[in-house]
Amino acid sequence: MSTPTPSRYPAPEIKDLPDDIRAKVLEVQEKAGFVPNVFLAFARRPAEWRAFFAYHDALMVPESVGRDSGLTKGEREMIVTTTSAANHCLYCVVAHGAILRIYEKNPLVADQVAINHRKADISPRQRAMLDFALKVCNQSHEVEDADFAALHAHGFNDEDIWDIAAITAFFGLSNRMASFSGMMPNPEFYLMGRAPKAKPAA
Amino acid sequence: MSTPTPSRYPAPEIKDLPDDIRAKVLEVQEKAGFVPNVFLAFARRPAEWRAFFAYHDALMVPESVGRDSGLTKGEREMIVTTTSAANHCLYCVVAHGAILRIYEKNPLVADQVAINHRKADISPRQRAMLDFALKVCNQSHEVEDADFAALHAHGFNDEDIWDIAAITAFFGLSNRMASFSGMMPNPEFYLMGRAPKAKPAA
Amino acid sequence: MSTPTPSRYPAPEIKDLPDDIRAKVLEVQEKAGFVPNVFLAFARRPAEWRAFFAYHDALMVPESVGRDSGLTKGEREMIVTTTSAANHCLYCVVAHGAILRIYEKNPLVADQVAINHRKADISPRQRAMLDFALKVCNQSHEVEDADFAALHAHGFNDEDIWDIAAITAFFGLSNRMASFSGMMPNPEFYLMGRAPKAKPAA
Amino acid sequence: MSTPTPSRYPAPEIKDLPDDIRAKVLEVQEKAGFVPNVFLAFARRPAEWRAFFAYHDALMVPESVGRDSGLTKGEREMIVTTTSAANHCLYCVVAHGAILRIYEKNPLVADQVAINHRKADISPRQRAMLDFALKVCNQSHEVEDADFAALHAHGFNDEDIWDIAAITAFFGLSNRMASFSGMMPNPEFYLMGRAPKAKPAA
Amino acid sequence: MSTPTPSRYPAPEIKDLPDDIRAKVLEVQEKAGFVPNVFLAFARRPAEWRAFFAYHDALMVPESVGRDSGLTKGEREMIVTTTSAANHCLYCVVAHGAILRIYEKNPLVADQVAINHRKADISPRQRAMLDFALKVCNQSHEVEDADFAALHAHGFNDEDIWDIAAITAFFGLSNRMASFSGMMPNPEFYLMGRAPKAKPAA
Amino acid sequence: MSTPTPSRYPAPEIKDLPDDIRAKVLEVQEKAGFVPNVFLAFARRPAEWRAFFAYHDALMVPESVGRDSGLTKGEREMIVTTTSAANHCLYCVVAHGAILRIYEKNPLVADQVAINHRKADISPRQRAMLDFALKVCNQSHEVEDADFAALHAHGFNDEDIWDIAAITAFFGLSNRMASFSGMMPNPEFYLMGRAPKAKPAA
Repeated sequence: MSTPTPSRYPAPEIKDLPDDIRAKVLEVQEKAGFVPNVFLAFARRPAEWRAFFAYHDALMVPESVGRDSGLTKGEREMIVTTTSAANHCLYCVVAHGAILRIYEKNPLVADQVAINHRKADISPRQRAMLDFALKVCNQSHEVEDADFAALHAHGFNDEDIWDIAAITAFFGLSNRMASFSGMMPNPEFYLMGRAPKAKPAA
Repeated sequence: MSTPTPSRYPAPEIKDLPDDIRAKVLEVQEKAGFVPNVFLAFARRPAEWRAFFAYHDALMVPESVGRDSGLTKGEREMIVTTTSAANHCLYCVVAHGAILRIYEKNPLVADQVAINHRKADISPRQRAMLDFALKVCNQSHEVEDADFAALHAHGFNDEDIWDIAAITAFFGLSNRMASFSGMMPNPEFYLMGRAPKAKPAA
Repeated sequence: MSTPTPSRYPAPEIKDLPDDIRAKVLEVQEKAGFVPNVFLAFARRPAEWRAFFAYHDALMVPESVGRDSGLTKGEREMIVTTTSAANHCLYCVVAHGAILRIYEKNPLVADQVAINHRKADISPRQRAMLDFALKVCNQSHEVEDADFAALHAHGFNDEDIWDIAAITAFFGLSNRMASFSGMMPNPEFYLMGRAPKAKPAA
Repeated sequence: MSTPTPSRYPAPEIKDLPDDIRAKVLEVQEKAGFVPNVFLAFARRPAEWRAFFAYHDALMVPESVGRDSGLTKGEREMIVTTTSAANHCLYCVVAHGAILRIYEKNPLVADQVAINHRKADISPRQRAMLDFALKVCNQSHEVEDADFAALHAHGFNDEDIWDIAAITAFFGLSNRMASFSGMMPNPEFYLMGRAPKAKPAA
Repeated sequence: MSTPTPSRYPAPEIKDLPDDIRAKVLEVQEKAGFVPNVFLAFARRPAEWRAFFAYHDALMVPESVGRDSGLTKGEREMIVTTTSAANHCLYCVVAHGAILRIYEKNPLVADQVAINHRKADISPRQRAMLDFALKVCNQSHEVEDADFAALHAHGFNDEDIWDIAAITAFFGLSNRMASFSGMMPNPEFYLMGRAPKAKPAA
Repeated sequence: MSTPTPSRYPAPEIKDLPDDIRAKVLEVQEKAGFVPNVFLAFARRPAEWRAFFAYHDALMVPESVGRDSGLTKGEREMIVTTTSAANHCLYCVVAHGAILRIYEKNPLVADQVAINHRKADISPRQRAMLDFALKVCNQSHEVEDADFAALHAHGFNDEDIWDIAAITAFFGLSNRMASFSGMMPNPEFYLMGRAPKAKPAA
C-alpha cells in the first residue's frame, strides 16, 4: 500500500552539474522552455548521463552520428510511445507522446498508440512496425525470421529493423529507470501538441 | 495484419432513432456540443441502448436513482479510466479520461491513472480504490475478505465497495463492446479538460 | 487465507421488493420452482436490477425485444458457460451450465465447454463461436478483421457476431458481480438437465 | 480450427491385453460397471500402464503400499479435481470430480473446486491444501519455506505435504497425457454422485 | 524471504534401502561414479521410487521394455532439458543437461535449449519437436490436430509424438517433485560432458 | 517454423573498425584470448557501440568512472545472469554466467541463478537483490517503497539499489539486442570458470 512517489532520488541543481552536462541542459531549456526531468534526474551520475544521451542521440537523431534512417522522426517517437505504454512508464509515455504529437502534427495519435495501437489511425506499415516493436519489447527471444519477412514486405530493410529494435530496447532501459526511480513527467508535456494549430496568417 | 478500423457497425442517423433515444441524444448534444459516439453506436439496437444507459446512470449518476454514493464523481471516473486502460479500450480511456479531468479540475490525472495508477497524484484512499478496481477487472475470482478489509481501513463501506466493483464490471462490458465493434472516440474528447483554466474575470 | 464466503451482501426478502421486481421474482419462482439467487442478490439495488435484467433479456431473449438471432438458445448459453468458466465464476457456470444442458438436451456439453471447449462435442461452427467469445472475454483489444472473417466463413453474419460479443461482455459484468459479492449458485442448478430423460410412454 | 477430437490413439480391445492388465481392467469393470477410458487408453503401452497405475496406487491408495496418509480419500480427490481444472483436463475433472462427490457424499463440491476453490464449501485447512496444490501445479519453482509453514499451521506434517505435492505432480502428468491424446471421459462419470442419496430402508 | 534450501526431506542411507532399490542404486553408483540425488531422495518412499523409475525407463530406455523409438537418446534428453528449464527445475536441467551433452557429444547444446531453444544449433525437426514439447508442457489443453500435422511433416509418426508428450509429462512430474522438495543436483553434473573430449590413444 | 539463426547482421572485420573501437577490441582479445561476439556485432554502428560500452563500464566497472559500489563484481554479474535468463537471452546468460563463475570462484552459481535463483547457494542479501532485479526486469511499474525497504533491511543503500536497477535495465537492452539480432555466444564462454581450480604449486 503506498502513496504516489515523487522521485526517489533528489536531482542535482543545474549550477552543480559538470560543464558539459550543464551546457546541454541549458541548451535544452532554451529550446523547450523548461528542463525535462530526465536531464536532471540522470545527471546525479554523470557517466551514466553521458552514455544515456549519447545512445539516445545515436538512435533518435541518426543524422547527428552521420547516418540516415528509413524511419521518420515521428515513427521513432511512435515506437517509443507504444512500447513505453506496454511497460507502463508514465514519464516516457507522457514526454514522448508530446514529441510524437508535434512531429506528426497529429494531436490524437499519441493516445491512440499508447492505449491500443491496433485502433490507431496509422498506416499498415506503421502498424507492422509497432507489432514488431512490441514483440521485441515483450518477447524478444521469440523473434524469428518470419518477423523480418513481415517487415520486409512493408518495405523496411534490415537497418530499419535494427532501428526499430534498438529504439525499443533503449527505451526499455529508460522505462525501467524512470519507473523504479519514481521520475515524474514535467506538467508541460501533457498539453504539448494537443491544441489545434492556429493557421498562420497568409 | 490489419489497418485501423473505423467502426465495424454503421451508426444510425439521429433522425431515425426512436423518440426516447433521440431525445436523450439531442439533450447530450445540447450539453456537450457534440454527440459522443457511444450514443449512436449502441442505438442500432434500441433495447440494448436503453438497458446500457439505465445501468450507466444507476451507477454513475446515483442521485438519478435516489441514492447517495460515498464516491465522488471524479472517483467514479477514475475507476473507469484506470480499468478501461487495463482493458486497452481506446474509446473509454479517451472519453472518460476527459470527464475525469473536468470533474477533478486536474489536467494531469487521467493520463497518470491510465498509464500507471501507482505513480498518480492521488490519495492513498484512491490508490486503494483503484487497486481493488483492477483486481475486480483482472481477477475477480480472487477477491477475498482481505480485500474488503483493506478498503474498510480507508473508510469505504460495503456500499462504496459495491460501487467500485459494479462500475468496474459495467465498464468491462463497455470496453469489450467498444473494442470489438471498432468504436472510435470523438476527437473532441482528447483535448477536453486539458487546458489551463482561464481565471474568470472578477 | 480465507474461508468460503457466503454472499457478502444480504439479499432482501421477497416481500420487501418493489412491486415490479417482486412480480418478476414470483414469476420465475413459479416457473423454475425456486428463485435463482441472482434475482434476490441484485434486488438490493432496484435500479441496477432493472437495467441488468432488461439487458439480459435484450440479449438472451431477443424475441422479447422484437428481433431474431442467428444463434440458438443453446448456443447463447454455451457462450455464457464457456466465458464464465474462463472468468472462474462459480454462479454463472453452474446456473447457465444447467440451462445449457436443458436447451441442448445434452447432459454432457456444459462440463465440456466449461473445462475445455476444444474437446467438446460441438460443431466446428460452435467451436469458432466460442473461440471468438473467449477472445472478446480475454483480449477484446486484439479483435481484428480476421476474426470477423473467420466467423463469416462459418455462416455468422455481423448481427450474430454482435450477439456473441455482447453476450460475452454482459456476462463478464455478471461474472465480476457474482464473484466479488460472493454470490453462490442455488443447489438446484447443479443437477438440472443431467438426468437421462425418461422416455414418455407412447 | 479443429473439430472435437475423439481419442487420437485407438485403444486396444480387452481380449488383447496382457494378462495382468486384463485382470485389473476386468476387476475395475466389475466394481464400477464400466471401464474408465484411461485403463484402455494407456494399455496400448503396457510398461507405461503398469508404472502409471503403480504410481497412482502408491499415492491415491496409500494403504495398498503399507502406509497411512494424513489426507482423507476425499481430500486426495479434491486435489486432483482442482489441479486438473487448472490444467483444463476434461477427462480428469469429470472422472475424479465424480469420485470426489462420492467420497465426500457431497454432490456440489466437485464443481465448486473445479471452477473456483476459493468459493467452495470446504474447511480452511482444505483451502490451504488446495492453495498449495495450485502453487505446485502452476509455479512449483516458487515454493518456499513459508508455504510449508502455512500448511504446518493447519496441522499438515511434511509427509502430508509430500502427498499434496506428489498427487498434484502425478495428475499433472495424467492431465497432459489425456489432453494431448484426446482422451474423453466415459459418459457415466458426469452423473455419478450427483443424485440425492436415497435413504436405505432401516 | 528465504535462504537457499537444501533438500527439505532427509534422504535415507544406502544401507537402509530395500534390497531391490539398493541394488539399483549401487549399480548406478558403479556406472556414474556417484549416486544422483534423485535416487536417494525418492527412496524414502519405496513404492513411489519403483513406479517412478519403471516409468522413467519405459520412456527413456524404450529397448528395456521391448520397443523401439523414433527419437534418439539425445533427442529424449533434449526434451527433458528444454521442458525442465521452462519449469525452472534446477535438478533436472543440470542433471539431464549433462546427459544430453554426453549423448549428443556436444558441449553447447544443453545450455542452448535450456535458455532459448529457438537459438540452439539443432535441426528443424528437433526444433519442431521442442516446440511441441513446450506446448504440452505449458498448454496441453490447446493441443490440436494441427500440432500433429506439423510433426508429421517432419517425419514424426504418432508413436514418436506419444514419446515427446509422455517424456514431457513425466518430467513435468519430476520437475514439480524436485522443486517442491528442494532437491539439489549433485555438483558432478555441472561439468559433465563440457570438456573437449580427449582423443583416446589408438 | 525456423532453423537456428546465426547472427542476422554480419559483423565487421577487426581491421575495418574505427581506431578507438579496434584498440578496445584488441585489448579485450589480448586479455580474454578471444573477441566476445558482442564487441564485433555492435561495432557495425560505431556510435551505438561507444555509447553501449560507456554505459556498460559506468555500471559494471564503477571505479572506471570514479565511484565505489556497494555491490561486488560477482554480485553485479549475478544480476546480469539472473535477469538475462528471465529474458531468455542466450548470449548474455552464457557470457556473463562465465564471468560470474570466475568472479565468484564458484563453478555452480551461474547455472543456479539462471535456472531458479530461489534454489541457489547465495546469501539472503543476494536473494533479496535478485528478487528486486527480477521485479525491475519484469514489472518495473510495480516497484514501490516497500521494495526499497526490503533492500534497506539487507544493508543496501539507495545507491546500491540504483546499481541493481540500472544493471538490470541496461542488460534488458542488451538482451533484446542480442536476441533480435541472433547474436550467438562464443563457444569459449560455455566452459570458462567451470573446471575445478588446480592448486598452484607451492
